Amino acid sequence: MADKITPRTLKGFRDFPPELKIPRDKMIESIKSTFESFGFLPLETPALEYKEALIGDYGEDEKLMYAFTDHGGREVAMRFDLTVPLARFVAQNPQLTLPFKRYQIAPVWRGENTQAGRYREFYQCDADIIGADINKSDLEIITLTAKVLENLDIGKTIIRINNRKLYTCLIGKINIKEENQAKFLQKIDKINKIGLDGVISQIKELGISEEKLEPVKEFLGLSTKWSLACEQIQNFGLCEIGKQGFSELDKLFSALAKLGYSEDKIIFDPSVVRGLGYYTGTIFEANLDKNKEFGSIAGGGRYDNLTQRFTDKSLPAIGISFGIDRLLAALEKVRGTGARNFVAKVLVTITDNSNNLKDFEVAEKLRLAGIKSEIYSGESRDLSKQLKYSSNLNIPFAIIYGENESLILKDMDSGDQEEMTIEEIINKLK
Amino acid sequence: MADKITPRTLKGFRDFPPELKIPRDKMIESIKSTFESFGFLPLETPALEYKEALIGDYGEDEKLMYAFTDHGGREVAMRFDLTVPLARFVAQNPQLTLPFKRYQIAPVWRGENTQAGRYREFYQCDADIIGADINKSDLEIITLTAKVLENLDIGKTIIRINNRKLYTCLIGKINIKEENQAKFLQKIDKINKIGLDGVISQIKELGISEEKLEPVKEFLGLSTKWSLACEQIQNFGLCEIGKQGFSELDKLFSALAKLGYSEDKIIFDPSVVRGLGYYTGTIFEANLDKNKEFGSIAGGGRYDNLTQRFTDKSLPAIGISFGIDRLLAALEKVRGTGARNFVAKVLVTITDNSNNLKDFEVAEKLRLAGIKSEIYSGESRDLSKQLKYSSNLNIPFAIIYGENESLILKDMDSGDQEEMTIEEIINKLK
Repeated sequence: MADKITPRTLKGFRDFPPELKIPRDKMIESIKSTFESFGFLPLETPALEYKEALIGDYGEDEKLMYAFTDHGGREVAMRFDLTVPLARFVAQNPQLTLPFKRYQIAPVWRGENTQAGRYREFYQCDADIIGADINKSDLEIITLTAKVLENLDIGKTIIRINNRKLYTCLIGKINIKEENQAKFLQKIDKINKIGLDGVISQIKELGISEEKLEPVKEFLGLSTKWSLACEQIQNFGLCEIGKQGFSELDKLFSALAKLGYSEDKIIFDPSVVRGLGYYTGTIFEANLDKNKEFGSIAGGGRYDNLTQRFTDKSLPAIGISFGIDRLLAALEKVRGTGARNFVAKVLVTITDNSNNLKDFEVAEKLRLAGIKSEIYSGESRDLSKQLKYSSNLNIPFAIIYGENESLILKDMDSGDQEEMTIEEIINKLK
Repeated sequence: MADKITPRTLKGFRDFPPELKIPRDKMIESIKSTFESFGFLPLETPALEYKEALIGDYGEDEKLMYAFTDHGGREVAMRFDLTVPLARFVAQNPQLTLPFKRYQIAPVWRGENTQAGRYREFYQCDADIIGADINKSDLEIITLTAKVLENLDIGKTIIRINNRKLYTCLIGKINIKEENQAKFLQKIDKINKIGLDGVISQIKELGISEEKLEPVKEFLGLSTKWSLACEQIQNFGLCEIGKQGFSELDKLFSALAKLGYSEDKIIFDPSVVRGLGYYTGTIFEANLDKNKEFGSIAGGGRYDNLTQRFTDKSLPAIGISFGIDRLLAALEKVRGTGARNFVAKVLVTITDNSNNLKDFEVAEKLRLAGIKSEIYSGESRDLSKQLKYSSNLNIPFAIIYGENESLILKDMDSGDQEEMTIEEIINKLK
């Protein structure tokens, strides 16, 4: 016999056993259902793409891509995110009806440093509107984000909104060299970790004079209530593009107010920058109101050059991406880790009468009534072993047999048991 | 500006645009729901595994594996099926409660010859019972298969059952050399394509004498009604292992009869062999009653050496695998290609009054009532363009505005439209 192989998973890759997969599936199902309630359409793209289609947008991170040569000598790579494949799909299908509102929920692969608590396989959960009107679709994506979070039942969340055009204006005002602009934004992005003073001192290192730091401080100090911030910002001296960003924000916040979203649930946050370079307008992030240590649980924004690597045709787009792992961690924090995850609601036990198919008949009746029912399929006919199995799997009820094959429903939590007809059991478990 | 990249998918890989993804998702949802109604638990394993864990079982086919060296110098490979990762998971988790009934629905990757109409990325859809009693779990997997197919609404299907032990017996009887046994089974597997005579003449090429062909003909000529076949098989002269296989089949068919499955829906089929070498007992395949050209739409069987590459511990198992692509083709054949796939049930149109949020308010009310509602998010305020969009996406209804912002529900099929209150619209669309 050949040598045994040690069973193990690759670093950064995870199995999701049932107790983890059940709540993941529920969360994904909830997000999918909210996306669809807004009319977003599902799209699936392949796990593997031509490498040339994927590289070019991620900078340094591209070395993290799982790329290799396939059997036919093609340079291929595993999906790195869901946005570039979307762009490829849209460019490849010019006949597509626009606007195209699509969602995709799928794993992506990045050879990340796992010491940073990152995984090399993780799910992205994206909804985007391609080729749409700015005002309506910015508002729609923000309300969609609010609704997804509301339906997840993870406690109060905050959506923090900004507009990239204000940063374009700020960068112009203080005259940051082009090669330092990305670094400047990255440093501001750290404000929740290192505070305003930390950010300012790091920005100084980019060679920005004290005098020019004033507008940065002023900007980052704007009120998070838009009704106040928009007064303050009037005195800021906005350039033309800044005024455009201001007007977009103003329309957005006034619509949100009319729709009844309170100013402390969806706020203006001048420190929101979004890491990636491709955003052009509205940008936003969401986090838990308490437990801010989870960081951002969703983020997105407007990017108007989606398909530019494939075609000259310019298409405006706005999208949102939810992080399943962080959302699940948040859910656990809010609900506690004690949630019992189960699939079958009842275990139908078996007896040692091998010609007796009562178990199959009972299970079939329960299933027809919509009750998930598992027949014990182990070798043991011992009742206590079967009940132990039920309790290991968190199955809340068990059906055992009384005299003359009458049915007894046992509540696994309380231990209570009662002789009942199949109809009574169905009524109780439904 | 950099050169444009041609947007394209890799050979054998597919995008699933909404019109294909919607019915795929529905089918997967239906299968998942039936699996869960039997108490099967979801498992997710990674897309990438150590290559050493995957090779060894697939023979020649292993050259089709997408294997490469990762960033850390590890030899890795993309998932080739769902069974070997299941074995790895079970071996890696000795604390697992047995029996373990799990399902997994996920893509696998094989660098197949695409000219044969095969894809290099395709979904497998598996349910297995690990560590279970033979009689109960064989019966359960067969009834599960029947229920999954019934719930898919693809017309009448036939499940064809056999037992590998009968072949062990037959192979012993006619004394086929070990190196020819796999070929022998592969030739029998072609019976639906080349007929009994074709099979017999191909078997001759393996150097089997006319005299020894007689038992093969006799075996393949057994009735597909078990009640008749089990009479015929009595005279066949079964060896010990053959008798065991016979007894397993007999128990299975008598239980199926008691549960009311008719002899023409679940049949005995001596020509079912299942390609892979690892089956040890009950084997079965399913196909459409009409349109047999689709070939097998599901198949499975008992294999009792699941974890042997990882551990000496032997675990009995039985499983079923459904082919999503073939099932979808079958569904299309049965229902016709004209099925309209849509997500939103109603398109809420927009007007050029930019301060008017009636569209968002109407959509919100519909969504709260559980009606999937899309707000038109294109730039055009032109009603005919918006209705064209609705009809392109197969959205069955549209809401437009009458005088004083009253609501009008338009049936996109008939063209009928009627002024209604939001409550009336909700009642109609619910």
